[in-house]
Amino acid sequence: MSLASKLAKRAVHIRSGAISQLLKLAAQADTLSLAGGHPATDMLPAEEIEEIGKDLLGTHGPGILQYGESKGYFPLRESLADYLREKKGISCHVEEVGVSSGSQNAIDAIAKILIDPGDSVVVESPTFFYSIQTLGLYEPDIVQVASDECGIIPDALEDACRKTRVKLLYVIPCFQNPTGRTTSFERRKDIVTVAKKHDVLIIEDDPYFELRYVGDNILPLKVLAPEIVVYVGSLSKVFSPGMRIGYYVAPEELCDLVTAARQVVDIHANGYAQAVACEFLRRGLLEPHLARIGPIYHGRLNGLLDALEQFLADTPFSWTRPDGGLFVWLDGPPSFDSTECYFEALERKVSFVPGEFFFFDRTRGKNSLRLSFANLCQKSLATAIERLADILTE
Amino acid sequence: MSLASKLAKRAVHIRSGAISQLLKLAAQADTLSLAGGHPATDMLPAEEIEEIGKDLLGTHGPGILQYGESKGYFPLRESLADYLREKKGISCHVEEVGVSSGSQNAIDAIAKILIDPGDSVVVESPTFFYSIQTLGLYEPDIVQVASDECGIIPDALEDACRKTRVKLLYVIPCFQNPTGRTTSFERRKDIVTVAKKHDVLIIEDDPYFELRYVGDNILPLKVLAPEIVVYVGSLSKVFSPGMRIGYYVAPEELCDLVTAARQVVDIHANGYAQAVACEFLRRGLLEPHLARIGPIYHGRLNGLLDALEQFLADTPFSWTRPDGGLFVWLDGPPSFDSTECYFEALERKVSFVPGEFFFFDRTRGKNSLRLSFANLCQKSLATAIERLADILTE
Repeated sequence: MSLASKLAKRAVHIRSGAISQLLKLAAQADTLSLAGGHPATDMLPAEEIEEIGKDLLGTHGPGILQYGESKGYFPLRESLADYLREKKGISCHVEEVGVSSGSQNAIDAIAKILIDPGDSVVVESPTFFYSIQTLGLYEPDIVQVASDECGIIPDALEDACRKTRVKLLYVIPCFQNPTGRTTSFERRKDIVTVAKKHDVLIIEDDPYFELRYVGDNILPLKVLAPEIVVYVGSLSKVFSPGMRIGYYVAPEELCDLVTAARQVVDIHANGYAQAVACEFLRRGLLEPHLARIGPIYHGRLNGLLDALEQFLADTPFSWTRPDGGLFVWLDGPPSFDSTECYFEALERKVSFVPGEFFFFDRTRGKNSLRLSFANLCQKSLATAIERLADILTE
Repeated sequence: MSLASKLAKRAVHIRSGAISQLLKLAAQADTLSLAGGHPATDMLPAEEIEEIGKDLLGTHGPGILQYGESKGYFPLRESLADYLREKKGISCHVEEVGVSSGSQNAIDAIAKILIDPGDSVVVESPTFFYSIQTLGLYEPDIVQVASDECGIIPDALEDACRKTRVKLLYVIPCFQNPTGRTTSFERRKDIVTVAKKHDVLIIEDDPYFELRYVGDNILPLKVLAPEIVVYVGSLSKVFSPGMRIGYYVAPEELCDLVTAARQVVDIHANGYAQAVACEFLRRGLLEPHLARIGPIYHGRLNGLLDALEQFLADTPFSWTRPDGGLFVWLDGPPSFDSTECYFEALERKVSFVPGEFFFFDRTRGKNSLRLSFANLCQKSLATAIERLADILTE
């Protein structure tokens, strides 16, 4: 059988294998990895999850092992609606909230019901590589619109909307992956204004909201324009990625359509995990957990920024200074090629993600790279940046 | 915002809401439900799962709470490969096995990488409603080929392959949903011969294999033609639907592509659940569990068949006599309309799934209906069929 002759046209967009291979290479035990986008394993509430597990079937009944509602476990949806109201200012009814098998599962379902091949979808420049693919597999025309330290540039968005009928805007407003940048409140208002003017739906992907180390929370786009925003959240960064719990908040009709599209993909998110997550929220464990891990991540972020200052000041390299999240973005001179440097870096036992992965057009981003500070202590971060600086400035 | 103007063309295929609504109606406490396709909650190994959970983080480490490999948790993939070799005769390498968030997640990913709009996909007549939709959302031309008590009819399949270039054949060979029929060994050989001749890939969806109550296992199509069959299995019917653990076995290149397509949808199946499932298999708990539940389900199947004999003999209704699984299929005279009867049945406190849901062209199947015997004791089954017979023979 010739597999190539069988593949759907959209399969050319599948290149996640490449990034997986790259992350695998980076996962050598003796390599200081600035590559992975995962939270640190010891920053996950393993003890709390173990404790909750002890009487989970007693508390929630064996029904959590049975098929459940595609929209999600009702008590968890209630807890999420309460949490979103109290902590993010998103006033939503429980019927506007669905639980997905991780947030990517929600983004896939949103794309599935909305994107026809050739539809115009705007994303930030750069943006998260999995989302480029999740959206890309529905074969839209992906337009990466210029972004700066305050987020996507409204005039550039306006230009894009004038050139073509844009259906969807995908943004990561807080501590963006890969840049670490946060879209300012003023900018959020401007983005929403442009989107309303041009009848554009917004996917607000907000998995890092809870990981703010500096300054005050900024109201989500969802609060500014609830009728045109699908808010996608995740418990992966602050609870457990392995538990695969994401959620989406949308006007009820749209929420139900997203649910229906998910139903034929995952039927529903893991019932056991939903019950654990529900208890985690109900027992008020999220806030003390964030209070524990926030300062540690903040220390790591500062460690990375200090090391960059120490080893790359007075070079053509510049970098972002995030207020939270897991990532810092490094820009080099136009002649710099981060992909070329990658294997050299591996030989020097340090790793990162080359910038090209964050662009739909992979000829772009070559002079940039993403650094994650989540998984190394400050001392290791300094060593890693020292090694990296040697390569970058050679 | 007008949502209708935003929807992708494929969204017209989303009708899972309808079946969910129908199942919700059927779930009234005082209604005897022959509708749901779920295993009985008290047939799930809740105690074993609770016991395994007690030291799961100790045994498998906190890494199960972290992001994991998209292809699945390696120890579970090893356990599955062993299980498939020993119990099903499928000789597969661990790299040919992937774990999905339920089997539907695997079917979605297979469809995503293979089906272009307009591609010809053959399925049985009737077949599982979610699969019609999962496949249908990629907009193939779905051809439901005539099937009899031995499975899909090879001559009909041959005809379909001559009329158009068929890319994919989707079959449920054991205790099919909705008919309960099993494709005979001879028939399997013939199907594989036709598929090879016409260069057709096969999805073998086999979630009921373990639920055989009568006779001997029949070798999967995967054993007969490993190079053209993607075998999709599930732990939902015999372990826990809520845990959402399915798996797929395919030649390595195809397996990796399916994994890559899944990666941007679910990233990976729930790590905690994968570790629980791994322990369940490793500790040899599946076989004694099947030995416990098999006879109970068998008793219920016999209870249903006896009641049908008692209340519907000498009527124009006929039904299948499965050797396993969860379902019996009832055919009425051409004038019978099961959808029309549905609400009357609900009033009489009995429910089923109308036959039309199992056809892509929903004008078909109206004179049939699916009965599940999994969730009622024999006495309740008799009462349910007595009520149903009243309506059907009115």
